Amino acid sequence: MIPRYARPEAADIWSPQTKFRIMFEIEAHAADAMADLGVIPKLAAETIWAKGRDAVFDVDRIDEIEREVKHDVIAFLTHVTEIVGPEARFLHQGMTSSDVNDTTLAVQLARATDLLMDDVDLVLAALKRRAFEHKLTPTVGRSHGIHAEPTTFGLKLAGHYAEFVRAKERLAMARFEIATCAISGAVGTFANVDPRVEQHVAEKMGLAVEPVSTQVIPRDRHAAYFAALAVVASSIERLATEIRHLQRTEVLEAEEPFDPGQKGSSAMPHKRNPILTENLTGLARLVRSAVVPALENVALWHERDISHSSVERGIAPDATVHLDFALRRLASVVERLVIYPENMLKNLDRLSGLVHSQRVLLALTQKGVSREAAYAAVQGAAMKVWRGEAAFLDLLKADPVVRPHLTDADLAELFDLGYHFKHVDTVFARVFGEG
Amino acid sequence: MIPRYARPEAADIWSPQTKFRIMFEIEAHAADAMADLGVIPKLAAETIWAKGRDAVFDVDRIDEIEREVKHDVIAFLTHVTEIVGPEARFLHQGMTSSDVNDTTLAVQLARATDLLMDDVDLVLAALKRRAFEHKLTPTVGRSHGIHAEPTTFGLKLAGHYAEFVRAKERLAMARFEIATCAISGAVGTFANVDPRVEQHVAEKMGLAVEPVSTQVIPRDRHAAYFAALAVVASSIERLATEIRHLQRTEVLEAEEPFDPGQKGSSAMPHKRNPILTENLTGLARLVRSAVVPALENVALWHERDISHSSVERGIAPDATVHLDFALRRLASVVERLVIYPENMLKNLDRLSGLVHSQRVLLALTQKGVSREAAYAAVQGAAMKVWRGEAAFLDLLKADPVVRPHLTDADLAELFDLGYHFKHVDTVFARVFGEG
Amino acid sequence: MIPRYARPEAADIWSPQTKFRIMFEIEAHAADAMADLGVIPKLAAETIWAKGRDAVFDVDRIDEIEREVKHDVIAFLTHVTEIVGPEARFLHQGMTSSDVNDTTLAVQLARATDLLMDDVDLVLAALKRRAFEHKLTPTVGRSHGIHAEPTTFGLKLAGHYAEFVRAKERLAMARFEIATCAISGAVGTFANVDPRVEQHVAEKMGLAVEPVSTQVIPRDRHAAYFAALAVVASSIERLATEIRHLQRTEVLEAEEPFDPGQKGSSAMPHKRNPILTENLTGLARLVRSAVVPALENVALWHERDISHSSVERGIAPDATVHLDFALRRLASVVERLVIYPENMLKNLDRLSGLVHSQRVLLALTQKGVSREAAYAAVQGAAMKVWRGEAAFLDLLKADPVVRPHLTDADLAELFDLGYHFKHVDTVFARVFGEG
Amino acid sequence: MIPRYARPEAADIWSPQTKFRIMFEIEAHAADAMADLGVIPKLAAETIWAKGRDAVFDVDRIDEIEREVKHDVIAFLTHVTEIVGPEARFLHQGMTSSDVNDTTLAVQLARATDLLMDDVDLVLAALKRRAFEHKLTPTVGRSHGIHAEPTTFGLKLAGHYAEFVRAKERLAMARFEIATCAISGAVGTFANVDPRVEQHVAEKMGLAVEPVSTQVIPRDRHAAYFAALAVVASSIERLATEIRHLQRTEVLEAEEPFDPGQKGSSAMPHKRNPILTENLTGLARLVRSAVVPALENVALWHERDISHSSVERGIAPDATVHLDFALRRLASVVERLVIYPENMLKNLDRLSGLVHSQRVLLALTQKGVSREAAYAAVQGAAMKVWRGEAAFLDLLKADPVVRPHLTDADLAELFDLGYHFKHVDTVFARVFGEG
Repeated sequence: MIPRYARPEAADIWSPQTKFRIMFEIEAHAADAMADLGVIPKLAAETIWAKGRDAVFDVDRIDEIEREVKHDVIAFLTHVTEIVGPEARFLHQGMTSSDVNDTTLAVQLARATDLLMDDVDLVLAALKRRAFEHKLTPTVGRSHGIHAEPTTFGLKLAGHYAEFVRAKERLAMARFEIATCAISGAVGTFANVDPRVEQHVAEKMGLAVEPVSTQVIPRDRHAAYFAALAVVASSIERLATEIRHLQRTEVLEAEEPFDPGQKGSSAMPHKRNPILTENLTGLARLVRSAVVPALENVALWHERDISHSSVERGIAPDATVHLDFALRRLASVVERLVIYPENMLKNLDRLSGLVHSQRVLLALTQKGVSREAAYAAVQGAAMKVWRGEAAFLDLLKADPVVRPHLTDADLAELFDLGYHFKHVDTVFARVFGEG
Repeated sequence: MIPRYARPEAADIWSPQTKFRIMFEIEAHAADAMADLGVIPKLAAETIWAKGRDAVFDVDRIDEIEREVKHDVIAFLTHVTEIVGPEARFLHQGMTSSDVNDTTLAVQLARATDLLMDDVDLVLAALKRRAFEHKLTPTVGRSHGIHAEPTTFGLKLAGHYAEFVRAKERLAMARFEIATCAISGAVGTFANVDPRVEQHVAEKMGLAVEPVSTQVIPRDRHAAYFAALAVVASSIERLATEIRHLQRTEVLEAEEPFDPGQKGSSAMPHKRNPILTENLTGLARLVRSAVVPALENVALWHERDISHSSVERGIAPDATVHLDFALRRLASVVERLVIYPENMLKNLDRLSGLVHSQRVLLALTQKGVSREAAYAAVQGAAMKVWRGEAAFLDLLKADPVVRPHLTDADLAELFDLGYHFKHVDTVFARVFGEG
Repeated sequence: MIPRYARPEAADIWSPQTKFRIMFEIEAHAADAMADLGVIPKLAAETIWAKGRDAVFDVDRIDEIEREVKHDVIAFLTHVTEIVGPEARFLHQGMTSSDVNDTTLAVQLARATDLLMDDVDLVLAALKRRAFEHKLTPTVGRSHGIHAEPTTFGLKLAGHYAEFVRAKERLAMARFEIATCAISGAVGTFANVDPRVEQHVAEKMGLAVEPVSTQVIPRDRHAAYFAALAVVASSIERLATEIRHLQRTEVLEAEEPFDPGQKGSSAMPHKRNPILTENLTGLARLVRSAVVPALENVALWHERDISHSSVERGIAPDATVHLDFALRRLASVVERLVIYPENMLKNLDRLSGLVHSQRVLLALTQKGVSREAAYAAVQGAAMKVWRGEAAFLDLLKADPVVRPHLTDADLAELFDLGYHFKHVDTVFARVFGEG
Repeated sequence: MIPRYARPEAADIWSPQTKFRIMFEIEAHAADAMADLGVIPKLAAETIWAKGRDAVFDVDRIDEIEREVKHDVIAFLTHVTEIVGPEARFLHQGMTSSDVNDTTLAVQLARATDLLMDDVDLVLAALKRRAFEHKLTPTVGRSHGIHAEPTTFGLKLAGHYAEFVRAKERLAMARFEIATCAISGAVGTFANVDPRVEQHVAEKMGLAVEPVSTQVIPRDRHAAYFAALAVVASSIERLATEIRHLQRTEVLEAEEPFDPGQKGSSAMPHKRNPILTENLTGLARLVRSAVVPALENVALWHERDISHSSVERGIAPDATVHLDFALRRLASVVERLVIYPENMLKNLDRLSGLVHSQRVLLALTQKGVSREAAYAAVQGAAMKVWRGEAAFLDLLKADPVVRPHLTDADLAELFDLGYHFKHVDTVFARVFGEG
């Protein structure tokens, strides 16, 4: 985990203290269920909660024990015994380390996903506000980086909004995938632990019961989880790339906030760089890098091997914490994005109306000109505009194919921006459920 | 696409003929809608259907035209004009190539996914049949490749069944992700095409309407799609790996079908190799390789660029066709898997009961022996078994820590396989909804 | 393999006919060696060459046999027997299928790499020619997409040239990695085939001897090979991205060739899109997608399993053929790139000299102004330029911090483009070995 | 970086203190060169070294400054001023942050690679010692997990040795790729910094001069670097997988060291799991996960953007430190691997000589039996052995095809293990340069 791209709220989920707290709760809830089943004394379960409920775990001490016994869960339980006393011997009956570890991971991932979904809400709120603010702000739509036809800046943002609505659904599905509890004992047969213990712990920890665990929760769930995060990261990259493009010196239709006192470059005082969205682009790559190892983790050998463990020690905190950071940063960038409608208009006019070439083409065909002849005439004029020879409207007015069919008034109407915005309401209604 | 790993039914979805057929239907349905809206003559739309409904498209001719005009959709439309006649000029009004291409891809991917879901049904049926057949067949559960505790072969298969139930849900979600229709014109503003055309085509082609397209359908959908396929591929790999392990010479608990006349090796006549499941392992890697480029396709520039296109020409047919092949092959392997219960029993006994070490440990602690002392005693005996010095039961009977607490009858009971199978019904009920 | 991105020369390496030709040569050379060693009759080896040297293999027939015997090499050998007659029984003595298959793959990959290295030579030649053509063409250097300082277009291309020199070295290393011959028999012990046979075949096929094969050539070699191709693909993507940026409407400093008769868009006649470099971006993603499965192929089980085979049937032809196509396309784009020096100058001036901010800053500090004060003054002026309030030079001349230290002549000198080009010769000498 | 998989020597390369130390040295060496060129006073350069040579940098203070100025290199230089005094103003003249950052990263990666190459030496030494120890220890060679033919354990290890020799060459190439120095100023034109400064710093820091930098060192170098590490990681995975297979309960031909006092499982006292090699498998996945983002980092925009930076803050320390840890762990596992030659022999005999089927087949064909008839006879007998019906030798002796051609003595000779080991010396000579 890279500290500079970690919010404390997210990083804390992966702190040793939080992990041990969750592990304790799982063990203590399991003890409750075992006590109810008469497997262990009720008093033992009560004592465990009484002593452990507010305990602070001594992480260094646990590390010290682990160095000796070379087993992380045994080290944890040994330390719990130091806190709880002899009743701790009733903990973990018939359970395996994986029962605790995998269920703990499920809780951590579920909590991390709750943060991520809140983060997406912030992104959505920012996008929605700016989309309505610029619902009818004209700007040029670009395909292949080349001017195509007019659109509005609000429409651009509405598209990203719709994508982040999908992102939220994907995160909800991802949370559903991994939020399961397994307490099924060695090789998952429940030989020494009653399935009702699992049921109880699942309820208390806010998880579903894993239908079949084989000592471990099957890793296809985690693969699906990290894949979902990767798609969300790619959606961040798409919006970040859009902003980077809009801030290019020659375009400058929007710009990341640049704070007073900020220095864009140590060498060149004039610089204002889109470093936040470039950073988001990099973070997207980092978050995505969890996908392949997560997929490789699925095919564990037989009932389980432990090859997935080191991978998850890396990717679980890294991918969730960095994605949380990236979503927050994105929300802030969108919220504070400096938007230059006048530059949008200037760019839109840069090619003297070339963006209306389709309308002229269609108008000519509707007047009875063959599509081929109309295309050739309009393209011919357009190529002269690209070469800087003349303005598009002038060329059209002088064109022997165009002139007989389209009056100056016709052409003026064909160059009207409003024509392109008549369905903005339709799209906004689809996306925001309102106009 | 590798022909030897392609079923005709799946490959056909990606044939030029099928693609042109879908493209025609999209254009013709759009023409119907435009005719209803009074944008084009009703007679034109009728003629288009009348001439094109049963047409066979001349793929070579379309290629020939494309070489000239260097544009695939224009080539297609030119050929349609050759088939339909002059009314073809009413096709494609206000539409862009992407409207047709992206919607066609959606139809192809949706159809491919229908096949994949049928394939998963075959895998599920095979797994279920074999799971019930071997519901109580004892076998050793292994963690880390090392004998752990007894389980049943049916439980193993039930776990894979549950995983493929998830695979089917993931495919259903993936289908939902990509089954959308976009007919929104240049940069997605509907400037020259009414949104009701999109609505009509979507209904006719069995798709949802894409809320915001920007000339293209946003590629986060496709990234999510290929990610889902990759997870399914990894589930195949897990089951394939299990079978490969089971067939290892020293294990030989199950074996791929080996047909009369088959030669396992040109050089070594004795060979019977798990080549089908090894092949599935490789195919899983191939299908997964679509994930990264699909993620990289998301961040197109502005309203669209065409960098995604070449990628999808590769991964869309390859990933779907090879996954279809792999699922079918897997279903067949499971269906025909040769299972050796007697070898399972032999392996289970190989360590003279070491797999019962946990039960002995728990029994000792229940008799009041401290966990540490009990662990030391049982581990001590076990290590002698690993070194081949004696049988586990004999060592336990002679152990000074064990003997005072456990009679011969106690120990015999602790070595009972049935103890481990008491919750098989519970798990089967969870997985299959029945015992 | 996607036919539209495949040159015949490259695709032919992977045709069945070529493959069978190489397999025959390996077997026949091995027969020669065996005959020299007295293992098989000299006459047999001679007959094999006599009958097979110019044979055309009947691919359909071999497929037919394979469907029966379910073994590709046996099918091939059976067909060879049909061509050669009974002497064919002396072929393949003590060899395994992998001896033939892996050595054949080595030959195919080596030949494909030869093409790729020739392709890079074309890219290098085009880059060098254009670099010298524009050695001193001024253009703005951009960091973060924002104008930074002046550079020359030749310097830009020199950087890409240096990168493709590295690409060629990487391909040379990659070729070295995979060009090995293994004829070591079952599990690689040479039990039934003399190591001198391997030595002879290696020499004849232009390969090195694999030091230790375990029936297969170790797959770390192939992983390194495809990784090298992926890096080359990324270098293509970098140059393609540069060109796409340069062609953006607002930038338009360079443009892909646009042929007479070409249509940029079916709907918008004015469009001229950088579709070739967008395509190269996509192809780079495709080529890179071979890396992960190739890495996953390394850890075969014990002496070999066959999971790598299906993967390589896909990635070996696809990655090499598409990379070949991409390199050729790139060479052509660079060769024919339309370059607009006047637009470069116009863009360079767009910010009224802001690109000289560092020089002003340094000049002020050299006059004794503290770095902080100088930075504040220059940045202050620059921000006004960004806001469109005034021209940079005017602001500087009026600035109370700047004016006391820099005369009009000083400032004019600081705005001199030539200052930035004084080391172009140095860099060209490093890259091209000449000025 | 995951602390439990990090050796201090490796992690220290990436500590802030080390980074700032390298940054200081680069700046101070650059000052020396500038002083020699008369750009700054000689006394300034001397003072910088005098005050900074043994300075300890206050990392918290630098962080504090960075929070204010939002620029890491400016924060560092500000702190250096606090240490060095006013002469620090002569530092960094005409340089950019990237000059320092990229060259620092080059030094860090080069040092990390030196460690990695030392690590590989340890792996090689361990493999060589064990290979010679078991040069002629018979063991079964397995293809597809199925017994194939006899080999020796030394030959297995020799193959891995040869692979790690390649690993070392790949690391050497990778080091060569990234060990370059760039001090070329804004957009890489050397406008304000003499190329001789770069030359001097490169020499002092043990780097080559980067021929063309564009403010940054081109990222194809780093992509090639991380790709090389990924291949090395995969070679670790192959050997780790081999050991995991050998330790499987049913195989048990080798075993990871199991220390006194170690607990294999908290629940099952009998467990001895190959957790080290499973961990290596996971670490290999982690190290490999750097490849894709490193490839995505190559196509920076124009002269540079900063999207690579966050990625490299993650993958550079993580991949190098975890690979270092993995190589050391692997060396230790190989060094201490417990090898069971008697189990190897037992496994070799498990199929009553089936591993000799090829020899019998070849002997029959040499006696004049057609290959088809011989294959059918030997395969027929073998299949009975698989079914447990009889021993292979007995079946052969009773076989009507075999009996007329092979005497008991012939068959005994065909079952001789030594036959398979006659070329072990050849292979050892190739690999180790000695027998």
